[in-house]
Amino acid sequence: MTTTFDLRLDTLRAAYGEGTTTPRRLILDLREKASELNGEFNAFIHLLSAAELEPYLAVLDGKSANELPLYGIPFAIKDNIDLAGIPTTAACPAFAYTPDTSATLVEQLIALGAVPLGKANLDQFATGLNGTRSPYGECRNSVHPDYPSGGSSAGSSLAVALGLCSFALGTDTAGSGRVPAALNNLVGLKASKGLISTAGLVPACRTLDCITYFTATAAEASQLLALTARLDPRDEYSRANPLWNDGSAFGQVKSFRFGVPKGLEFLGCPESPELFAATVEQLKAVGGEPVEIDFSPFLEAAGLLYEGPWVAERYSVAGELIEQNPEAVLPVIRAVLEKAPGTTAVGLFRAQYRLQQLKAICDRIMAEVDCVLTPAYPRPVTLDELHAEPVKRNSDLGYYTNFMNMLDYAAVALPAGVMGNGLPWGVTLFGRVFTDQYLLSLADALQRQTQLPLVGGNAINTPAPKNPARNDKARVVVCGAHLDGLPLNWQLRQRGGRLLEATTSSLAYKLYALAGGPLLRPGMVRVAEDGAAIAVEVWELPSSELGSFLTGIPAPLGLGKVELADGRWETGFICDAYGLEGAEDITRFGGWKAWLEQRNG
Amino acid sequence: MTTTFDLRLDTLRAAYGEGTTTPRRLILDLREKASELNGEFNAFIHLLSAAELEPYLAVLDGKSANELPLYGIPFAIKDNIDLAGIPTTAACPAFAYTPDTSATLVEQLIALGAVPLGKANLDQFATGLNGTRSPYGECRNSVHPDYPSGGSSAGSSLAVALGLCSFALGTDTAGSGRVPAALNNLVGLKASKGLISTAGLVPACRTLDCITYFTATAAEASQLLALTARLDPRDEYSRANPLWNDGSAFGQVKSFRFGVPKGLEFLGCPESPELFAATVEQLKAVGGEPVEIDFSPFLEAAGLLYEGPWVAERYSVAGELIEQNPEAVLPVIRAVLEKAPGTTAVGLFRAQYRLQQLKAICDRIMAEVDCVLTPAYPRPVTLDELHAEPVKRNSDLGYYTNFMNMLDYAAVALPAGVMGNGLPWGVTLFGRVFTDQYLLSLADALQRQTQLPLVGGNAINTPAPKNPARNDKARVVVCGAHLDGLPLNWQLRQRGGRLLEATTSSLAYKLYALAGGPLLRPGMVRVAEDGAAIAVEVWELPSSELGSFLTGIPAPLGLGKVELADGRWETGFICDAYGLEGAEDITRFGGWKAWLEQRNG
Repeated sequence: MTTTFDLRLDTLRAAYGEGTTTPRRLILDLREKASELNGEFNAFIHLLSAAELEPYLAVLDGKSANELPLYGIPFAIKDNIDLAGIPTTAACPAFAYTPDTSATLVEQLIALGAVPLGKANLDQFATGLNGTRSPYGECRNSVHPDYPSGGSSAGSSLAVALGLCSFALGTDTAGSGRVPAALNNLVGLKASKGLISTAGLVPACRTLDCITYFTATAAEASQLLALTARLDPRDEYSRANPLWNDGSAFGQVKSFRFGVPKGLEFLGCPESPELFAATVEQLKAVGGEPVEIDFSPFLEAAGLLYEGPWVAERYSVAGELIEQNPEAVLPVIRAVLEKAPGTTAVGLFRAQYRLQQLKAICDRIMAEVDCVLTPAYPRPVTLDELHAEPVKRNSDLGYYTNFMNMLDYAAVALPAGVMGNGLPWGVTLFGRVFTDQYLLSLADALQRQTQLPLVGGNAINTPAPKNPARNDKARVVVCGAHLDGLPLNWQLRQRGGRLLEATTSSLAYKLYALAGGPLLRPGMVRVAEDGAAIAVEVWELPSSELGSFLTGIPAPLGLGKVELADGRWETGFICDAYGLEGAEDITRFGGWKAWLEQRNG
Repeated sequence: MTTTFDLRLDTLRAAYGEGTTTPRRLILDLREKASELNGEFNAFIHLLSAAELEPYLAVLDGKSANELPLYGIPFAIKDNIDLAGIPTTAACPAFAYTPDTSATLVEQLIALGAVPLGKANLDQFATGLNGTRSPYGECRNSVHPDYPSGGSSAGSSLAVALGLCSFALGTDTAGSGRVPAALNNLVGLKASKGLISTAGLVPACRTLDCITYFTATAAEASQLLALTARLDPRDEYSRANPLWNDGSAFGQVKSFRFGVPKGLEFLGCPESPELFAATVEQLKAVGGEPVEIDFSPFLEAAGLLYEGPWVAERYSVAGELIEQNPEAVLPVIRAVLEKAPGTTAVGLFRAQYRLQQLKAICDRIMAEVDCVLTPAYPRPVTLDELHAEPVKRNSDLGYYTNFMNMLDYAAVALPAGVMGNGLPWGVTLFGRVFTDQYLLSLADALQRQTQLPLVGGNAINTPAPKNPARNDKARVVVCGAHLDGLPLNWQLRQRGGRLLEATTSSLAYKLYALAGGPLLRPGMVRVAEDGAAIAVEVWELPSSELGSFLTGIPAPLGLGKVELADGRWETGFICDAYGLEGAEDITRFGGWKAWLEQRNG
């Protein structure tokens, strides 16, 4: 493909704002283009007709790009997600139904101004990672005709990669939102389970399913997630997004630790090892410190998904149809599901116990790093290989993806290189639940660092975020009895606190020993003149525990913002001015410990 | 029973401190007494011999009551929990094994100074709620010979109720730690799943099991929980206790909302309705406001436990034995478990989906109240009734308990009355996960209010806690742009904030309009003189979200402690003194809104 295009969110906003195009004009053009390309790529099962598009365009007529965050943004919907009035097929004509209402997420996006272009092709019942398992035709890769699009969100990835939509909705139970992203030079965001409503989705595995976003850039995925993450009463698996993971958590990363699996598997791929090693270097260049991790518990969890009783979840959706009308379901899907009816509840519980053990082990590994970097897949597979060995080659693609939802982590797949034959090559960054915006910040930094051409041939031209990126930890600056080794330090440690650095404040502070007791307490106070650098420590706490730490702090102390030697402002101890009555100015000692020492010595 | 005794933690601590007895003397006496009573009550499957006790006593010899929080405190261990070197039977001789190591919790307690007296009788495999299902003999009630002890933690409840131990360990999957508490005038704490390690417990339903405490008072259960709640690497279902739920959360309750189920079921009991109504009045007397709630989703969740595929969890433990040697297992237990092998994984997943739906519904109900009050059981059942209809009468006892672990709530059963025939009568207080210490605070308040005689005939003589009780919410005092209707109020609302009250500060504050902008911001500052009452609002936030609220506050503001008109100190906005440069003193307006009005008007 040599066509160029630019449908990024910011680009379209600017175009609409300047009046160089209108949603109606752009989207009807895209519909034409999609219709032309569909013969070759089979990306869409159903493209909305002009009449079907009209209601979505009409509501935009009276509005402007400033009023709606997604004004006139075209998107594709994987055809296992409901759009009101259009059949949902899950790539199985015999299963199809026409929903009266749209999926919650689709409703949200339309209310924000986005326009659905069509229902995208997929591996039947979202069972597959390759894009060839559909009666609506195989999906070839957007770049190289010998390769598949990847799946199961095959058509969704193509819709963005071919320049037909700004973003697309996929789903991801075992990797369906990540494998096709990497194969088509896209960002694929599989957010933490439950952040994005799955109401109106045909389940694959109800306990694991996520709806995902395909975009050209991580920054766009961040915007979409921030706009649509919400607790949905229609979805009992939906979960509230903690506010440390809201849109403002997307920002600049400074220094971070990333896990790298020991003994990476590339299945003999001659190019992937080098591409991966180069990506490690790129992540180091943006502030990352690699840490080797044991990957075996992750792989064992992955094995439970397809070899174990979770197949019964898929069967609970498609089983009735298979029993009544086996020919209606593709043979490869039937083969995957046929073990399910014989699986017992006892066996499922035992597998769930094992999964819980593995999760405890993996969680301890994940607690030590800010994210993990893996290849998106060991190696790409060709269409010919898939036709020859449809189950095995499909499994190959899921090696680095299958465990993610089993273990409840968040993940972003993103482009990280190009193979010799031109095929895009990608990696996955994954991390603890509810650190989605932080992972997207890392992905954004990596995209800016590699400067790989985006789909459509563009370079990243939006400004990098300036605010610091944020994950599930908060930093707190301590200057007194909470310092390492002092009497209240346990309050930090019992919350899982970790000492990040010993440094000093900026030159604008005075330190006092407060009157009263028996516990000696300091008051660190910002002053206009005669200030000094005060010795402090920066600790990291789980954000969820910062509140209980705060409520335990007695007057006159509190937590506000403290300026550090390097000019950063961090949350730290402040002192209400009235509390200084009778206090002793100990600024000249330069810190609480130095004063304690002379006092005791 | 007319014996009197007092083995409460504080009583024994005082006795040991004063030297009126020693652990060795007391515990060997208790062993004698237990041995004598066992013929009638069958409380113990194995009483430790003097030789077996000796190592636990010997380690205390060099120590004093001040060094170990549980110095010389005798406790009983339900015989499905491991004590190193003593057989664990689960009340099934053919199943018995002798563990090399103790359960984590048992190890913790011994390390704290507690002394295990013996292994207590139970309904076989902890399957039952009545205490009659054991080859080691039936457990009759501690007070009334026509009634059972309740179960499955039958002997554990008797050990405390008969004055043989200060506390006992039970377990609770479906109610086994609560039903026998209520029937024997005890507090039964079923803490949030995962707070107390279950490593070294014979599973009943691995995903649901809890180890519980039986005590005379809620205050003792609070101490024990605070001492032993911890994340255990040996238990993959263990969960970290959020610090808002540590021992300091046990305190005084002031005003709270308690749910009361609509259409309570008493199964024809002539006395229970009145006893329950009286308890509602008692809870109102300690500051509670009753709120009627729909109980049907809780009951539907309860139904899933025994009618549904969760029986397969029990079968995964005892199934092999039943297949090889059916006679080794009591017929009533076999009858309960025999459905399990035919249960499919598809059926289990469907039940888990339904449970998740019910949990979402119940969680919305629980979000509106601070706890729910129910009877402990609809009515007590006699031994004769149990013998006549062993399964049905057992089920009757679980009506108000079976749903608790399925829905992941915390619960405390406690005495709340006495029936005409002398049988103790109890209630359950349950609440959101990780509000255990808050529930215990309510239970403590209720025990102090009712002043029912404790086991042993004692009255509560320990001082009531003075600090405010705390649950999973935190209060924050706002005085400026976060006030209801003002520009930053959404930061509270998006975190699930709720306005508790509009009030004023104490007379010790000045209010300033800070310099700079564009957003107008106040600084509320405590002063030694010329202060005034400033209009403020008290909001309630999830404690886990207070941290992200704090980190979003820019300098010079922060959160510290603010004194309110009624003398309370609450977490609220404070202002670093340097930030007042160029600020306008607006104290005379009495509040931010009043100043804004004159400014705009």
